This record gives sequence, structure tokens and C-alpha cells, in this order.
Amino acid sequence: MLSLAEFQRRIESGEVSADAAIAQSVEAIDAQEATIGAFVRRAKSPRAQTAGPLRGIAVGIKDIIDTADMPTEMGSAIYQGWQPRADAAVVTALKAAGATIAGKTTTTGFASMDPTATRNPRNPGHTPGGSSSGSAAAVAAGMIPLALGTQTGGSVIRPASFCGVAAIKPSFGLLPMVGIKCYSWTLDTLGLFAAGVNDLAHGLSAITGRAELLSGNATAPRIGIVMQDFAGAPESAGEEALRTASRAAERAGAQVRALALPEIVGEAWRAHPTLQEFEAHRALAWEFRVHHDAMPPLLRAKLDETKDLQPAAWDEARRTTNRARKALAAVFDDVDVLLTFSAPGAAPKGLSSTGDPRFNRLWTLMGVPCVNVPAIVANGGLPVGVQVIARFGNDAGALAAARFVEEALKRT
Amino acid sequence: MLSLAEFQRRIESGEVSADAAIAQSVEAIDAQEATIGAFVRRAKSPRAQTAGPLRGIAVGIKDIIDTADMPTEMGSAIYQGWQPRADAAVVTALKAAGATIAGKTTTTGFASMDPTATRNPRNPGHTPGGSSSGSAAAVAAGMIPLALGTQTGGSVIRPASFCGVAAIKPSFGLLPMVGIKCYSWTLDTLGLFAAGVNDLAHGLSAITGRAELLSGNATAPRIGIVMQDFAGAPESAGEEALRTASRAAERAGAQVRALALPEIVGEAWRAHPTLQEFEAHRALAWEFRVHHDAMPPLLRAKLDETKDLQPAAWDEARRTTNRARKALAAVFDDVDVLLTFSAPGAAPKGLSSTGDPRFNRLWTLMGVPCVNVPAIVANGGLPVGVQVIARFGNDAGALAAARFVEEALKRT
Repeated sequence: MLSLAEFQRRIESGEVSADAAIAQSVEAIDAQEATIGAFVRRAKSPRAQTAGPLRGIAVGIKDIIDTADMPTEMGSAIYQGWQPRADAAVVTALKAAGATIAGKTTTTGFASMDPTATRNPRNPGHTPGGSSSGSAAAVAAGMIPLALGTQTGGSVIRPASFCGVAAIKPSFGLLPMVGIKCYSWTLDTLGLFAAGVNDLAHGLSAITGRAELLSGNATAPRIGIVMQDFAGAPESAGEEALRTASRAAERAGAQVRALALPEIVGEAWRAHPTLQEFEAHRALAWEFRVHHDAMPPLLRAKLDETKDLQPAAWDEARRTTNRARKALAAVFDDVDVLLTFSAPGAAPKGLSSTGDPRFNRLWTLMGVPCVNVPAIVANGGLPVGVQVIARFGNDAGALAAARFVEEALKRT
Repeated sequence: MLSLAEFQRRIESGEVSADAAIAQSVEAIDAQEATIGAFVRRAKSPRAQTAGPLRGIAVGIKDIIDTADMPTEMGSAIYQGWQPRADAAVVTALKAAGATIAGKTTTTGFASMDPTATRNPRNPGHTPGGSSSGSAAAVAAGMIPLALGTQTGGSVIRPASFCGVAAIKPSFGLLPMVGIKCYSWTLDTLGLFAAGVNDLAHGLSAITGRAELLSGNATAPRIGIVMQDFAGAPESAGEEALRTASRAAERAGAQVRALALPEIVGEAWRAHPTLQEFEAHRALAWEFRVHHDAMPPLLRAKLDETKDLQPAAWDEARRTTNRARKALAAVFDDVDVLLTFSAPGAAPKGLSSTGDPRFNRLWTLMGVPCVNVPAIVANGGLPVGVQVIARFGNDAGALAAARFVEEALKRT
């Protein structure tokens, strides 16, 4: 994989030019795109910028994120050839930080469940996960050092786990959602994919102008292991990933203990689909009403099924969410971070399903920062990650603890 | 003015056809548009729908709200002729409820401060207020029974006060913002303009599918009068409007008392601009970076001035906001609603300024429902309103109390 931080270091020192760094990404995409299929569309002649912390960094943009110079098709025929007027806020931020947009990466239709043709770079017979399929795959394949995805259920952390890359879903609101196709305004959150945790920190810091995100490694973090019983049991590979990460962290000096979440947090997990689908019916109202037949079939079926969701159910789901957020905040009085499954197990076989977000959706709803750290490689060369979760707003802490876990795992 | 509820009653009873109701609006627009200038663009041949609670209701849509069959120009040359692909979520909801879109109403550039040429129907030498200038003016002029606006500072309640119409800025999140040009994602809130409070209730209920919004009049509400000292003193007309409304409510049986807001609420008032401009720099980043010279000049100057706002300032403003929201919630343990100024006074003379949002911005930031009720007519035939404010989520209570105040004022 291409390390963003390593590119920065080499460009800064003059060891490599920003142009050469971009050229390296272009060549890597040329070499692998036919096999992986991570891109919907590539920038015509991507050039390096001359200044900014992300000069020389080629970035993949999930194709529900508006770009002024490339169509944005939402993974759906309804938006075929659709050319937005403006760049999304985050794309402008990337460009302002010196980055070069390499192209638009594949997304499931409207970032829901209908899979793309993208293959998992670790094993092409398996899904890369979704909905940010192309972004996870492009980073995993070593095509680009940075890619943007979005998560409403588990669309950043799960594909990162399946593809064996680092990813962060930051605190809700840290990155602006302006110019990004909405599915659920309470849940949709931008995220980053990169080779390692330090690369995420450098990318997120450059986009946001927040130096505090570079605070480095944690020392002896207090880690609470969370099983998310309400979401069912993981597969053996998921269990092994969490056990391996937990033991590695403990050996490296972390204070690790099992932790039961307050009851209300499990209730919030159950409320997530109500909130998500009620909002999707509003966010995608035009598509559902005017282009029903052309909608991605799995998404259409889900919306058909839930079309009678009433405002009172949404109100109740929001109240439950608010109570759960307060209860979860109190949990972080006793631990620095939580450690849990990034996905039930390794990437499922075939491309017909992008996998199950059941271990992700609670954390999207809570708005807390989550970082995927690859933990083990299971049968078939398929990676399985764990997620490190911090208190709302403590993105620096999530990254620091994730780096601690990542380093600990390297020593096993 | 055209009453939405009265149209509904007459259409329901067969007294008037939905087609005739739409025709009446079209004729009224034909008759007055040359003088008022409320519309950027009119629907080509608006036809009534045959079903739905809003059949026969012609609606004006502020021109920062996407429409699939009419351009959406944001009040700016940067979006001249820009044709979105989809209807905004709220436009689809209006259509699904049977409404007919009459056209796009004028907006200040990006719903900020640069005025439109729209005239105040009560006195054409004065501003109608902004940023939802055309929507307020079109309802005030009796062109249409319902119009949509948005408020980030005071862009719904203030023009409603200046034009003498009822308006509601509902609780944050009640109406979906999908497909609406963003200025500040924490603040931007959709609102409705109509002839009277009952019309607002019928409109909002039809759009949201919430029957509870039709709960009618309050009886003997507990009203706290709030002076908002932190925002400075009102003009004499503003003061008179509040005094008149307060006395009328008391005579009608309300329990009225002066109320001091907690200190932290005043701090939140001071934090509003930081939050608003920090987010505007992200929401309008593409326009500011790529089309700086073409930006509306007052907005550009404001953004130039605030371009060094740092993330830490935003973080601090958000923390202040959260504390103030909690403190304000406690205020509603003792009163049902607050009553305060909708604007410093009557509409300023001329069209060079849309007036001052200083008595509005706190309530936008708090996310609480606000209803403008016209209270007095000052010199020059210019109306001045008051705003009724309820607890977050209690939109039904805000409407019921506003109707109480409206009825009480009719009896003075």
C-alpha cells in the first residue's frame, strides 16, 4: 500500500517530487484497475499541486460526493452522466490542502446495499464490502494513498476491515457533508481510508486544519472490550481478530477489561434502522416517487418495506438515541477507548452481498469516532479488523489509541 | 391574503374546485408580480392535483431549494440557469401532499445579506426583509397561500414580521434539508409562510404527516416575556408590538410574566456568528475559492473578514450552544412559551438592507420552534410582529400558543 505520511516525508525532504508521487498513483491505477474495478471514472490528467500538506497525494472520491469537473452518478442509473455544479465541501478542502483528485470510486447505489462489481484486492473472489467499495479497494490495492467514503450503517469501517486497510469514521460533524448525496442526515458521516493509522491522522489533519489530530501514540490506554451482544455473535474470524488485538494491546501495556454497555445503548442499536429508513424515505423521496422502477433493487425493496414508517416512530428513535448518547458518554469516564468487532468476520465470498453492518451501526448512530485497524489474516488471505472507538469529539484520542493497537499488533 | 385553511375547507366542501383555487393564485400573481417582484421564475402552466390535503394550494419555493423542473439559482450569478436533477425532499413532500408549485421566490444571494429587488407589499418603499424575501412578500401580497423559506439567522421570522404574515421556523430537523443550498448545517432550518397561524398548522401538518400539529388553540398558556437584552434594545415599534401582544394575551387569560434567560443563553447568542461563519466557509468553500469575484458582495466581504476562524473557535461555540440548549430546556419547565421581538422594529426604508436578525439568531441556534404573529401596524402601514417560542420538539405547542396570541390580538 502507499503510505500518505511516507509520501509527505519524501516530498518534504525533496526525495521525490509531488509530480512523481502522483505519477506513481496513476501507474498503480493503470496496472490494477482492470482487475479490481475500483473507479467509476478517472480524472483526465491528474496533476500535482505545488503547495499544501497533501501535495502529491492522489485521492479517490466516493461517487456520491459531488465534483465540479467529473460526473457524480450515485451508483445509480438515475444519475447517469449527472454533472454537479460545485465540488462538495470536503473536495474543496482536499484541493485547498494540495491534494489531487485521482477519480471517483465505486459506490453501491445511493450508498445502500446493491453491490458494485469491485473486487477485493486481497482475494478477487470476495466482496470488498460496501458501500464505499471502490475507496477501500483502491487503497488496499496500493493504487492511491487516500480515499473518501461515507458511513450510514457500516460503509467505511466494514469495507476497511474486509480489505485490510486503516479507516476512520470521525465524530459526526467533524467533516462537512455539504455536496454529498444524503441517505440519513442523522447518520451519514464522511470517512477516510489509508494504509495505516498515522496516514489517517495526517490526512484528516490536513483536511480539517486540526494539528491536534497528529498527537501520536497513546501510552497504556485503558481499553474496554465490547462484545455488542445485542448485535448477535461474530463469526470465528471476527472473534479471533478481537482476541488477538486485545491480547496484543495488553502485552503492549494497555489496561484491558471486558465492559458491558448500558441497556439503553442496545435499545439504540435496535432503533438505528427506524431512524435510517425514515430519513431515507425523505432524503430519497424524489427518486422513490419519480424513478421507482429505476431504483437499485435491494434499496427499492427496503424502502417499499418501510414506507409506512410514521413520524412518531422516528421521534421515539431519536429520544432513545439521545438517552443512549448520554449513557455512552458516561462509559468513557472509565475507559479511554472501546475495542470491538469491525465486522462479523472476513469478507463474504462472491460479489452479491457487501456484508453485514451489524457491528457498526450503533457507533454511527452514537456519532463517536471509530478507527479500523487490521488485526489478523484469515483463510483465503482475507484480513479482519477491529475498531477502536473513543468519546464523541475525541478523534485525536481514537487515532492515538488505534495507533497503539496497530503497533502492538505489529509486534505479535 | 389567501388563507390555506379556508381554501382547504372550500375545496373539501366542493364550493370551489382545486383548479379554480390554483387559477386564483395565478391571477393574483399576474396582477401583482410587476409591482412586487416576488418571483425569480414561475411554473409554466401550474395545474391542480386531484388528491391530497394540499390540492389546490399554490406554493412558492425559495430559490435555494432544488426543483427538478425549474432552475435553482441561489440568488447568485454563479448558479445562473442551474438546473438540479432532483426536487428537494420538502418539494417532493409538498407534491405528495397534493400541492402545486407556483414558482421560485427571490432569495438574497445564498440566503445571506445581499438584497433582492423584491418590494414590501405593505409599503413598496421598504424592504420585505430577507433572506426569504420573495416568499414573505408573495404571501403578504395575497398571491399564494403558502411559501417556503429558510432561516440561518432570522430569514423567516424577520421578513414575516416586516410583511405582516404568519410564519413558522419549526424545530430543527422537523423538515428535511436535503436538496437545499447549505449555509450552516447546524443552523439552516426550513420554514413556512402563510396568512395565519391556523394556515401554518395545516400546511406543516400536510407536509409532515403529523396530525398533532392541528391541535388548535391553547387555553390560558403560561407566557414568559423575554427582552433579549444581550441583543440590544428594540426600536419603539418593536417594543410596542411586544407590549401590545403581551397585554392582549393577558387580557385573554394567559399567565404572563417577565422572564430572564440564563446567562449561558446570552453567551450562545454571542457564539452564533462564529458557528454560522465557520460553517459557511465550508458550505460555500467552492464558491469562495473558485468564484470569489462573482460572489454577492456583502456575503463575500463577510467571508473575507472571517476567513481565519479556527476549528477551536467552532468547537467552543458548539460547547456553548450545547450548554445553552440544556439551560433553555429548563426554562420551559415553568412556562409553556416565550414571547419576544420578531425584529427590532418595522421594515427599514429602502431596499439596500434586509434588516437586522439580532432578535432571531439565538432561537435558530437553540433549534426551538418559533412562530411570527403580526401584532401592530406602525407608521407607513408597516406591520410589526412578535414571536412565540416553545420547547424543542413542541411545534404543536408553539402553534397553539401563537394562535392564542393571534386571537387575542384580533380582539384588541
